[in-house]
Amino acid sequence: MTILERLTQRLSKLPGLGQKSASRIAYFLLKADQSYIESLSRDMIELKEKIKPCQICGYYSETDVCSICSDQQRDKSIFCIVEQSKDIHAIESTHEYNGVYHVLEGAISPIDGIGPDDLTFNRLFERIENSTVKEIIIATNPTVEGETTALYLVKNLKNNNIKVTRIALGIPLGGDLEYADSITLGRALKGRNKME
Amino acid sequence: MTILERLTQRLSKLPGLGQKSASRIAYFLLKADQSYIESLSRDMIELKEKIKPCQICGYYSETDVCSICSDQQRDKSIFCIVEQSKDIHAIESTHEYNGVYHVLEGAISPIDGIGPDDLTFNRLFERIENSTVKEIIIATNPTVEGETTALYLVKNLKNNNIKVTRIALGIPLGGDLEYADSITLGRALKGRNKME
Repeated sequence: MTILERLTQRLSKLPGLGQKSASRIAYFLLKADQSYIESLSRDMIELKEKIKPCQICGYYSETDVCSICSDQQRDKSIFCIVEQSKDIHAIESTHEYNGVYHVLEGAISPIDGIGPDDLTFNRLFERIENSTVKEIIIATNPTVEGETTALYLVKNLKNNNIKVTRIALGIPLGGDLEYADSITLGRALKGRNKME
Repeated sequence: MTILERLTQRLSKLPGLGQKSASRIAYFLLKADQSYIESLSRDMIELKEKIKPCQICGYYSETDVCSICSDQQRDKSIFCIVEQSKDIHAIESTHEYNGVYHVLEGAISPIDGIGPDDLTFNRLFERIENSTVKEIIIATNPTVEGETTALYLVKNLKNNNIKVTRIALGIPLGGDLEYADSITLGRALKGRNKME
């Protein structure tokens, strides 16, 4: 196997890349600046050394406590619960949220043998006990696993006098009712809001 | 800028990757095996050191003469002319061709200031003189530049008693006439073949 074939095969294991796009990138790298390739390699290798989960919320961070948890401007009385660190990245990019987060590191999935004890619920409940939380926003994915996790959270938080909310699930903006799947549409109907 | 942001930015410069797919890959690498990341990095860096154009046809090769030019089974009397090395990769994957190649390293493009002298025509004409070529298949891209290059080749080869052909341009297989652009459709009509 030539180095070009080997690199293409390795690249094709990255998410979103197939054989063709991996081959395209390999040919691109063949003509790219050596300095660009070297800095790309260095960053990839250093990535895992430098980034650790935040000790408080679990978000990827280069410091012990992440930039969100250590930000005095953020509202520490609102927790947004997500499955993965990358979900925080997505929510932050909306600029619509000013509270803090908690990363569960997954979702409850009996089929995959993932129960509540495999996730970071214990640390979450500890955090809730040690602070005055007013609202918990559940932002797990709209999948069977994400919904199961959301229900588990609701059940375990209902005696705490905390408002527990779920992000709205429905038709995406710019979407078309005609092309929406029936489950999403059903959910959108059920979650209808009063217009004022 | 965090290392995660920096890596995402670097990855997004690769062809076919935008901000979102680059970010997805960066998060994937964060959870990937260190050994996978290290071998990916090593291959990327070694790529340019190890691969040089074949001294005969210009195809990327780890040896002075590429595997195609040194293959005794290939028909050395048919040349297929391509713009880039990666086009050879595409043609080889069809398993329909058993001749040899010549890489022009681009196409004639007056707008970009690329004339015949900037390409490897001289080496091609030398190769043709020093061997008994029966057919030249022009497989440049169906773009203005590729067509210009094809016409230039036809003009320069017509006194050599060599059959010069052009790959068929038309409706792609599985394509739909309704959705074909008019230029492709016009070309498909012009290039119609007798059915037998």
